[in-house]
Amino acid sequence: MSAFLLMFFTSVTAFAQEVANNGVSPAVMNDQRYNRAIHIMAMLLIGFGFLMVFVRKYGRSALTATFLLVSTSIPIYIYAKSIGFMGGVSEEVEKLILAEFGAASLLIAAGAVLGRLKMPQYILLGLLFVPFYMFNEWVVLGGGLGLIPAKTVIDTGGSIVIHAFGAIFGLGVALTMTTKQEFEKTIEADATSDRYSMLGSMMLWIFWPSFCAALVTPEQMPHTVVNVIIALCGSTIATYLFSVSLRKKISIADIANAALAGGVAIGSTCADASHTVAMIIGILAGGLSTFGFAVIQSRQQKWMKLIDTCGVTNLHGLPGLMGGLAALPIIHGLNMQSQLSGIGLTIVIAFVAGLITGKILPLMGRRTEAYDDAEEFIDAE
Amino acid sequence: MSAFLLMFFTSVTAFAQEVANNGVSPAVMNDQRYNRAIHIMAMLLIGFGFLMVFVRKYGRSALTATFLLVSTSIPIYIYAKSIGFMGGVSEEVEKLILAEFGAASLLIAAGAVLGRLKMPQYILLGLLFVPFYMFNEWVVLGGGLGLIPAKTVIDTGGSIVIHAFGAIFGLGVALTMTTKQEFEKTIEADATSDRYSMLGSMMLWIFWPSFCAALVTPEQMPHTVVNVIIALCGSTIATYLFSVSLRKKISIADIANAALAGGVAIGSTCADASHTVAMIIGILAGGLSTFGFAVIQSRQQKWMKLIDTCGVTNLHGLPGLMGGLAALPIIHGLNMQSQLSGIGLTIVIAFVAGLITGKILPLMGRRTEAYDDAEEFIDAE
Amino acid sequence: MSAFLLMFFTSVTAFAQEVANNGVSPAVMNDQRYNRAIHIMAMLLIGFGFLMVFVRKYGRSALTATFLLVSTSIPIYIYAKSIGFMGGVSEEVEKLILAEFGAASLLIAAGAVLGRLKMPQYILLGLLFVPFYMFNEWVVLGGGLGLIPAKTVIDTGGSIVIHAFGAIFGLGVALTMTTKQEFEKTIEADATSDRYSMLGSMMLWIFWPSFCAALVTPEQMPHTVVNVIIALCGSTIATYLFSVSLRKKISIADIANAALAGGVAIGSTCADASHTVAMIIGILAGGLSTFGFAVIQSRQQKWMKLIDTCGVTNLHGLPGLMGGLAALPIIHGLNMQSQLSGIGLTIVIAFVAGLITGKILPLMGRRTEAYDDAEEFIDAE
Repeated sequence: MSAFLLMFFTSVTAFAQEVANNGVSPAVMNDQRYNRAIHIMAMLLIGFGFLMVFVRKYGRSALTATFLLVSTSIPIYIYAKSIGFMGGVSEEVEKLILAEFGAASLLIAAGAVLGRLKMPQYILLGLLFVPFYMFNEWVVLGGGLGLIPAKTVIDTGGSIVIHAFGAIFGLGVALTMTTKQEFEKTIEADATSDRYSMLGSMMLWIFWPSFCAALVTPEQMPHTVVNVIIALCGSTIATYLFSVSLRKKISIADIANAALAGGVAIGSTCADASHTVAMIIGILAGGLSTFGFAVIQSRQQKWMKLIDTCGVTNLHGLPGLMGGLAALPIIHGLNMQSQLSGIGLTIVIAFVAGLITGKILPLMGRRTEAYDDAEEFIDAE
Repeated sequence: MSAFLLMFFTSVTAFAQEVANNGVSPAVMNDQRYNRAIHIMAMLLIGFGFLMVFVRKYGRSALTATFLLVSTSIPIYIYAKSIGFMGGVSEEVEKLILAEFGAASLLIAAGAVLGRLKMPQYILLGLLFVPFYMFNEWVVLGGGLGLIPAKTVIDTGGSIVIHAFGAIFGLGVALTMTTKQEFEKTIEADATSDRYSMLGSMMLWIFWPSFCAALVTPEQMPHTVVNVIIALCGSTIATYLFSVSLRKKISIADIANAALAGGVAIGSTCADASHTVAMIIGILAGGLSTFGFAVIQSRQQKWMKLIDTCGVTNLHGLPGLMGGLAALPIIHGLNMQSQLSGIGLTIVIAFVAGLITGKILPLMGRRTEAYDDAEEFIDAE
Repeated sequence: MSAFLLMFFTSVTAFAQEVANNGVSPAVMNDQRYNRAIHIMAMLLIGFGFLMVFVRKYGRSALTATFLLVSTSIPIYIYAKSIGFMGGVSEEVEKLILAEFGAASLLIAAGAVLGRLKMPQYILLGLLFVPFYMFNEWVVLGGGLGLIPAKTVIDTGGSIVIHAFGAIFGLGVALTMTTKQEFEKTIEADATSDRYSMLGSMMLWIFWPSFCAALVTPEQMPHTVVNVIIALCGSTIATYLFSVSLRKKISIADIANAALAGGVAIGSTCADASHTVAMIIGILAGGLSTFGFAVIQSRQQKWMKLIDTCGVTNLHGLPGLMGGLAALPIIHGLNMQSQLSGIGLTIVIAFVAGLITGKILPLMGRRTEAYDDAEEFIDAE
């Protein structure tokens, strides 16, 4: 009888925890997050990787670089968090997801200089990027250095600390990592590489809800994922409309890229916005991003004197900042000062960190020929 | 003590619910369905999208059209269900899955006229399709108009209301949307586009169990998913055998398409058939579908005076109807009259709706050149 | 009141079971495993399938063969386990996962002779392979014949019974299935087929944690999956370093293949090794595998007088054996004799079974032209 009583009390206590957590036990929660973690890994490797295969002669390099960037950054991030660097995390799956967020931001940064680094330089980029990224994450979200109170910046799906940070870091690096010769070289695509690019794009689109909902509560999940999908639908349709309006014919590169801008921009407010607002954010982000690819990109090259190979400014930079700012009117009870400081600090930290990284990378030399597998790969035609 | 008692009663009550639901709390159920929803999204974009890339010069258009069809139909369906149109649904993830089912049916319909619509016509197709689809779903499954008692038609995985509906709707549209000039134009494929097509096919094959089991109970899930996989194995082997028998050599288009017929045909009975019956359904469906591609398709063109670009008649139409009829001998206690009325009504509603849609689409004009990216895309060779 | 008491006792008993199982009810456990099963299916079809598309003119055949091998072996395995052959399994999803493990091993075996079998010979290979595989699994892990006590060989993710077994079986088959003419024929790749190959590789990489953690307890899952990812990161970086060191330039085939060796080699100890040890195993496996592709493979052809088309010796054979042996120093309280006997028996059974199979296959004749779709497919260029 007393054994039954013990079993009974243990059960009631454990179950009360579950009820408090909406019926989800810790082990089940871990498994739910694990599925998100795998979805995000699909985004990192096939999503980002194949999206970057649009450069016709640089496909092998883009995919290998993706492999190396992910394989460098994830173990470092996990190890750092395990020893409590910039705020420790104990739970394994949560740590993995945070590491994947870092890898996503790194891949965005690398997209800005894609084709102009040698393979070991991608690895070095990963080594330098992770501590800067962790520092920014800690300062903006974790209350690091006491600049912004912890958890007062709203950025559930990372519009600010993942997308904008990665893009601006990449621009900082690109300032140094663009040579005169590279300004004159066209980046070519063909039908085969375009379709690979669409594969990457669709892979990102499909799993984006898991990216944004990876760490929300079970209660918030349904609303969050539907918001993300609605925002992506909005940006996809807007991209088509803007692409055909601005260019007369559709650019498949616009479709592959700007269709994703809704996912970037809904990141900060995905758990909180209404579906209607999510649709509006998606449409605005798709329009802004397409305008970026069609109009801004060529002027940016002259004005900033850099080449942003994948146009991360237009896909992650502008929509990311827009998403962070969108929280101001949308979130009730938002600490406005925190949100603005978070955005401002991210811009500064990312750009300075990128500049520093851009000064270090050339110490390993420069490529002879940009955007070409043949320099580093056997049998590349 | 009284706090403990309260906690205790709350816990017991909540847990009794879980036990009744096989140990699955509502929040956990939602998460399980969410994973299915993502799997289905992979089928919609990469599955259907890349399966349609087999048209050599029309790959960019096929993928962009897929993006637009999904992005148009899903928000409309979700919004309509939210306001209670044709039977409301309150739970977010369930609504998302139902919207994805509609998008799948729409992509099937679009497959019939692929290459012969302009991009804005695909969007219009989506706008027109969704209300018709919801009407049929409501009448056949939801007891709408009082024609068929609700829940008496067995169609768990949508053989009837998703596959057959989409295919027959598509044929209705194709009747108008095939010009004389288009009859004379060959639809070309090459090795690259064929391998993309196999990627789409495999993506559909892999996630098909999640499509059919998306809304079954946790108790039914294991039997259902194994049934779907067995049916797909059956149709895959049958497709190879029939393809090589009917054509002397294997057609990769048969493999990419007809291998999936087992998934289509097991749809109605996937939760109820035995594994042996699932294998038989799979083999018959694979054989029927391959026969359709190898023998019927060319005759259908002359007889029905239309071109079915992707052969949706053979992959979704015939196997879908077969699957719906298979319930008659298989399901114990089936309401035969309901099942037959459901199939009959679906055929009529789909065809009439398709015809109407086919009359409206040409108001936006017609393509100059079918099956060619160059008309609408920049830089298409 | 008595109804409440009944509800109460049922609830407490059922929940006590869950608590014992870390808060995971049987129905929830099934669903978790189902998600793993789908991940593994993605590895089998797109992963293994597209990895083998690197043979330029044999893409359609490689993908069709993958379809047929999976569709033949899975239903047979499920049926055999259902009737209690070599140790029955009653739970449906568990049976499905075990069947997929068998299919993975079969695809590895087929990789050794890829391009030198006719399509019906792949089916026959599947029919012959499954019983041998089940016999080895039963003897090594299940206590079959009383040779090794059940559950004393540590092989959580199948380094021994899946990877090494499949590779050695394949070598046994290849001994007969390599003709003189085939020794002189180069296996060609090009940029398009290479990128498909990377798609397959990445698909395997992404879902590998689900392969290894498919049947571990919920408690072991987080540590296991992070171990697998760390090992894969280690082998990916090591592959790059060894490839560029051994060959002067990077071989994309090394990257696509050897990057996965960490997943193969961590298989036995994934639930038990520390993260640091997982990284070391990954690095060693990546190095060993790259050395295999760069140095051993061409010598093996002369020495063993066989062609191993996909280099399964280097990706699955050597890293698989290394993984099995790694358990010796790593696992506390390991039954060393069992582990060594398990490895030894697997080598013997696999090789003899492969030899027998290799004698039976040629009874169906031989291909005229190796590595070429045109012999069996319509419209192949």
